Amino acid sequence: MSRRILVLDTTLRDGEQVPGAKLNLYQKLEIARQLQALQVDIIEAGFPSSSRGDFQAVKEIAQSIKDGPVITALARAVKSDIDAVYESVKHAQRPLIHIVLGTSDIHVDKKLNRSKEDVLKMGVDAVKYARSLLPEVQYSTEDASRTDFEYLWKTIEEVVRAGATMINIPDTVGYAVPEEFGALIGKINYRLKNLNEQVILSVHCHNDLGLATANTLIAVKNGADKVECTINGLGERAGNAALEEVVMGIKIRPDYYGAHTNVATREISKTSKLVSSMTGLDVQVNKALTGENAFAHSSGIHQDGLLKSRDVYEIINPEDVGVESMEMILTARSGRHAFKNAVENLGYRCNDDQDFENLFAKFLELADRKKEVYNHDIYYLMGKYQEEKGKDPQAGQQLPGCDLYELVSFQVVSNDIFPTATVKLRKGQEIYKHSEVGDGPIDALYSAIKNISDLDIVLKEYKISSLSRGMEALGRVNIKISLGDKIYSARGIDTDIIKASAIAFVNGINLILLENLAPNNGLDLN
Amino acid sequence: MSRRILVLDTTLRDGEQVPGAKLNLYQKLEIARQLQALQVDIIEAGFPSSSRGDFQAVKEIAQSIKDGPVITALARAVKSDIDAVYESVKHAQRPLIHIVLGTSDIHVDKKLNRSKEDVLKMGVDAVKYARSLLPEVQYSTEDASRTDFEYLWKTIEEVVRAGATMINIPDTVGYAVPEEFGALIGKINYRLKNLNEQVILSVHCHNDLGLATANTLIAVKNGADKVECTINGLGERAGNAALEEVVMGIKIRPDYYGAHTNVATREISKTSKLVSSMTGLDVQVNKALTGENAFAHSSGIHQDGLLKSRDVYEIINPEDVGVESMEMILTARSGRHAFKNAVENLGYRCNDDQDFENLFAKFLELADRKKEVYNHDIYYLMGKYQEEKGKDPQAGQQLPGCDLYELVSFQVVSNDIFPTATVKLRKGQEIYKHSEVGDGPIDALYSAIKNISDLDIVLKEYKISSLSRGMEALGRVNIKISLGDKIYSARGIDTDIIKASAIAFVNGINLILLENLAPNNGLDLN
Repeated sequence: MSRRILVLDTTLRDGEQVPGAKLNLYQKLEIARQLQALQVDIIEAGFPSSSRGDFQAVKEIAQSIKDGPVITALARAVKSDIDAVYESVKHAQRPLIHIVLGTSDIHVDKKLNRSKEDVLKMGVDAVKYARSLLPEVQYSTEDASRTDFEYLWKTIEEVVRAGATMINIPDTVGYAVPEEFGALIGKINYRLKNLNEQVILSVHCHNDLGLATANTLIAVKNGADKVECTINGLGERAGNAALEEVVMGIKIRPDYYGAHTNVATREISKTSKLVSSMTGLDVQVNKALTGENAFAHSSGIHQDGLLKSRDVYEIINPEDVGVESMEMILTARSGRHAFKNAVENLGYRCNDDQDFENLFAKFLELADRKKEVYNHDIYYLMGKYQEEKGKDPQAGQQLPGCDLYELVSFQVVSNDIFPTATVKLRKGQEIYKHSEVGDGPIDALYSAIKNISDLDIVLKEYKISSLSRGMEALGRVNIKISLGDKIYSARGIDTDIIKASAIAFVNGINLILLENLAPNNGLDLN
Repeated sequence: MSRRILVLDTTLRDGEQVPGAKLNLYQKLEIARQLQALQVDIIEAGFPSSSRGDFQAVKEIAQSIKDGPVITALARAVKSDIDAVYESVKHAQRPLIHIVLGTSDIHVDKKLNRSKEDVLKMGVDAVKYARSLLPEVQYSTEDASRTDFEYLWKTIEEVVRAGATMINIPDTVGYAVPEEFGALIGKINYRLKNLNEQVILSVHCHNDLGLATANTLIAVKNGADKVECTINGLGERAGNAALEEVVMGIKIRPDYYGAHTNVATREISKTSKLVSSMTGLDVQVNKALTGENAFAHSSGIHQDGLLKSRDVYEIINPEDVGVESMEMILTARSGRHAFKNAVENLGYRCNDDQDFENLFAKFLELADRKKEVYNHDIYYLMGKYQEEKGKDPQAGQQLPGCDLYELVSFQVVSNDIFPTATVKLRKGQEIYKHSEVGDGPIDALYSAIKNISDLDIVLKEYKISSLSRGMEALGRVNIKISLGDKIYSARGIDTDIIKASAIAFVNGINLILLENLAPNNGLDLN
């Protein structure tokens, strides 16, 4: 009989920890809604004790995402963290508290600096406390793959007796080798099911040596009931097991795994694009299943084979992961229905009528200007829209009473003699104008803005990426700037790559202003 | 005793098949030299029968890369392909012919449309012919993981008797599951070593389900003597096993694999950057070992642990793969030695004195303009230099007697009212000028260039990526344009992203002109 494997997605927790991938509240909600459409079983929505913004996001997700996934969030094994998780997830239809605590010698001795007995007692107390708040508690034995087995088992046994309903075995540093990890999971599974067959056994694998997917799959083969993954494999360092790879691995080989998941695989492609678009992190062209070339056959030998029969070189039907061969092109005459359909196809939701009307007005504006509107343009529209929503003080993203810079207008002249930029910024009631000559258009532009800000900012990194169809350029600029020792990440998006660059720099300066205004306000601004 | 595992790198063959990754002769030679520094055992340099350019590149590599790697190239099991390989690799110190032929039912029936006996005879005849030319011949049983075992073994047995010295088992479509693939390799290894213990057993895994690294490593555990990989995992569709992951997997766990390779792992990072820079394909930030964040710890929990002890969250010392914490910043006063050192650190070679002097002059020009010169600037300098070398008719990259467009000068005005571009192009003795207004600066620019070319080109894709440090913008633009049914890829690079965009479009138009001039000249232009 085929076993049902539960899928926990931690894109919003482990994935969002990636440098520069910070999401605002609106973006987190959109991703959570798409994860619901993808039919994941559990959404790990954040780490509420880390910042007020994270707490708020978990709470909004718990309140908004009904009918489907369990909502959880991460806590260290301390009361204040567990309280923060409880207070943020309690509004969910099915809330879960996730507690993490190290078990390997290296974590116990060097990081926690306590005896093994003390650490175990911390874990047991944390589980008991969490169970006094909610019926479902997951316990993660951090760095399990480098833990002495008997101490690992003793920990599992005692936290299960204390009330843990899920045990998660992380390969925290991506050290495990599939056969060994499979054997470890098999051994734990055997003992655990003898101890309490209701307890769910889970794995969480990191990809430092490129083995996260293989380790996760072999764990399923050896009895794991649940897998923890992220979209596109985002996460700390080399990331986590990629949800799309794990889920499709199980789906392609039901004979081998004797298992299935409830994931709606046709939603994979759009989920991947939505996450990539919102985090600003591109997916490598040869990424399995979600890369641009994942289904592209280029060599003559392969093309010849494919023309003769698709299955010569194709084991996965691209449509099974939602890769569409045809992209719909919209025009100003496409109408509300077609636009709504296109927006939803990209993974966004349009439930609020007023929101939709505002968006549709912006779409018409763009369609008038561009004639043809492609998927990338819709990402852009939605991105702009999120940005505006993010500015809403109710969304908790901005401090009241702080004047920020706003780009009023600009002109950049790019040529091979004197690249020159003129910018006009507004801050509160003041208008500022400045011109600079530079080594190139961006240099000129940033020098002019920097001069207005009067801050000794250093541009550490400038990345621009753009994707578009037809005769237009759609740009997303990611920058890192520093002031003193501190580094700030910011982004800008616009159909004009020069304007996107200006917006990113202005956003970065605003971050610095906000932080200097209120250094200890608990907001996590970068 | 630790077994020595041979490493074949096929970045220049399987990797270069990726759409848009086409390399010119000079770039292929640079990569081959860096693979030599990386101490790979075998370089697969191309597929000589596919184009005259590929033949020429394999030949140059065979002639230039001495003292170290075996040089091989791919042939189908037909005489003309084997001749092309022989003629191109014969100048190498240690040449090898690589023959590939399908063995699975689906390949035999649907692609080759012959009986199994006929296919086997083709393979045996091909090996015999190749052995009449060279002492070393590798035979790949394409789609081996989906092949009936007894037919697979019969093929191996007969080609070994016919003289094959290496047997390569490809998981052509990335279908294999590690445990099954390990068992398959174990079984083949047992029989093969009984048949002829001198024959080398190899594997070649694809990453369609994210398992290429795991499948390759389990093959090593089960007796494979050789692994086939690419840098950054480039290759058809989702690519091949990533060399860096396979090599470091073996290195981190000598206890488990009982094996080692000869790869100079400290060259990994620079090899990855060189390949990424030359193919124009970015590496995902969370790519294991070579991604920008592979060693970045961002969460507070992890940072706290790391401060207490590095090994809490780090199993690989970043320096072991050549990731340097400090980047050297050059100025106009750095001098020849420092510049040469920086260039070599990025994986380039400076053996020719005249070449080096030319480069140094360009470096001084740039340093005067930019004050500080970073690694990315050096990539840019080398990229420009390669481009110029690529134009050298001796390099076989360009047809004589064909006038191409050249960008003479340009001015692009980017603002929020009327983005406008003016370009001046030269073609032969003619000068062309044109201005256009557009929806954005790139739209204006491309409209102006397109108007001059008088070709009905459609821009299918525009990608710009840039990485830089300090106050300047360094851009690489990759475009796809179409004329009629045919799609062309082109690239441009410049410190000015607008100019890089113009160069890419002009390069694309030149490709179209070249091809229409000589449609059947055997050059592979896109």
